[in-house]
Amino acid sequence: MQASTPETAAAPSPYAKLAALGLDLPAPPSPIANFVTFVESRQLLFLSGQGPLDARGVLQTGKVGGEVSIEAAYGHARLTGLNLLGVMHAALGDLSRVTRIVKLLGFVNAVPDFGDHPRVINGCSDLFMEVFGPIGAHARSAIGVGSLPGNISVEIEAVIEIAA
Amino acid sequence: MQASTPETAAAPSPYAKLAALGLDLPAPPSPIANFVTFVESRQLLFLSGQGPLDARGVLQTGKVGGEVSIEAAYGHARLTGLNLLGVMHAALGDLSRVTRIVKLLGFVNAVPDFGDHPRVINGCSDLFMEVFGPIGAHARSAIGVGSLPGNISVEIEAVIEIAA
Amino acid sequence: MQASTPETAAAPSPYAKLAALGLDLPAPPSPIANFVTFVESRQLLFLSGQGPLDARGVLQTGKVGGEVSIEAAYGHARLTGLNLLGVMHAALGDLSRVTRIVKLLGFVNAVPDFGDHPRVINGCSDLFMEVFGPIGAHARSAIGVGSLPGNISVEIEAVIEIAA
Repeated sequence: MQASTPETAAAPSPYAKLAALGLDLPAPPSPIANFVTFVESRQLLFLSGQGPLDARGVLQTGKVGGEVSIEAAYGHARLTGLNLLGVMHAALGDLSRVTRIVKLLGFVNAVPDFGDHPRVINGCSDLFMEVFGPIGAHARSAIGVGSLPGNISVEIEAVIEIAA
Repeated sequence: MQASTPETAAAPSPYAKLAALGLDLPAPPSPIANFVTFVESRQLLFLSGQGPLDARGVLQTGKVGGEVSIEAAYGHARLTGLNLLGVMHAALGDLSRVTRIVKLLGFVNAVPDFGDHPRVINGCSDLFMEVFGPIGAHARSAIGVGSLPGNISVEIEAVIEIAA
Repeated sequence: MQASTPETAAAPSPYAKLAALGLDLPAPPSPIANFVTFVESRQLLFLSGQGPLDARGVLQTGKVGGEVSIEAAYGHARLTGLNLLGVMHAALGDLSRVTRIVKLLGFVNAVPDFGDHPRVINGCSDLFMEVFGPIGAHARSAIGVGSLPGNISVEIEAVIEIAA
């Protein structure tokens, strides 16, 4: 007989962590064109790029390093991460089925001389670490793009590993 | 004994759908540098980025939102999709081996204030839906890039699931 | 009884090839934000985007097609490839565990009218072919981005297949 460790016994679910952060899981955004928000294949979940859709249904816009500050863009990336969590929940039924955040690709709608993309995309990465703990640690690239749909400030896509 | 349903019996092959659309499958483009057009791994087919190479062997070029209209760029994305189908056919021998279009990443060579990337990349997505039906529904990101090889207007890469 | 062919018997390891090229494998770069440099999932190794960090610990910067020439940028892409090899070695313990370079996504920090991205990213592709031989042949996309972290000239991410 093996007693569960206190850490294991106490490990809060992703939902408990979201609640502790004061975050409501949003309904998954509808695709804005002819695609779907996720596809599961080979126990990997591929998530379409999401943007900073807020609780009022408004997408945050603007050029980062121009009219959007790094601090604001960090918040937009966190909001984008929350929308990705909404899609994961819709896809999996239970966020506890996530076994690893594998890879993020973060697009920052930045002015040409911007260089702080990592600090921006940390808004999403920090959220995933807070919600998933060690399995939230992911590979990542962060780049500056010339433009994004509807002039949103940030777009992030993800690959997630799920239990077989 | 189970009779096949009329729908199943009548389901046209991807080739029949291409013919019905009046589209000829192009020969797979040659890589323009030191890489290959596809790699199969773990029953996933990773396709290199393709561009809008037309039947005359000419690549469509220009900045979308500048000298290239949304409507023209939609056509370029459809052409890019046709080239991706040419690569899939070369890779698999039979497009019927495709079990799912998993993920597209669409790059639009756009002016900085462009915002209609989803409408452009729909040119490829619509084609895949027409040719593959429900298994053509895919995850997707569409972004605006600052420049593309040879100033092509659109570049799209893809991940495809194939039968084990 | 089958004798091994001279080619097979003589096949040098990736390390021998690096030595023959006069290249030292760098220590894996530390992530510059809240992410990890690699995640292994489903026998695929996903590598975070790396940049042209040289042996002195200096990242190469600048706009390609502007103050950075194609030839210099090719060198930066080769340097980026060397850093990716450093990460692979750290991840796998032995580069011989690589069974295929599956996919590269190369970002060139280019001026808007730049069009020679493939020649730039060849710096990485050529190195992988030299080090891994036929299993180094990979799918690839090369795009021009509007900006990169710290104004680095090139960033490349990769998906690698490893032995089960």
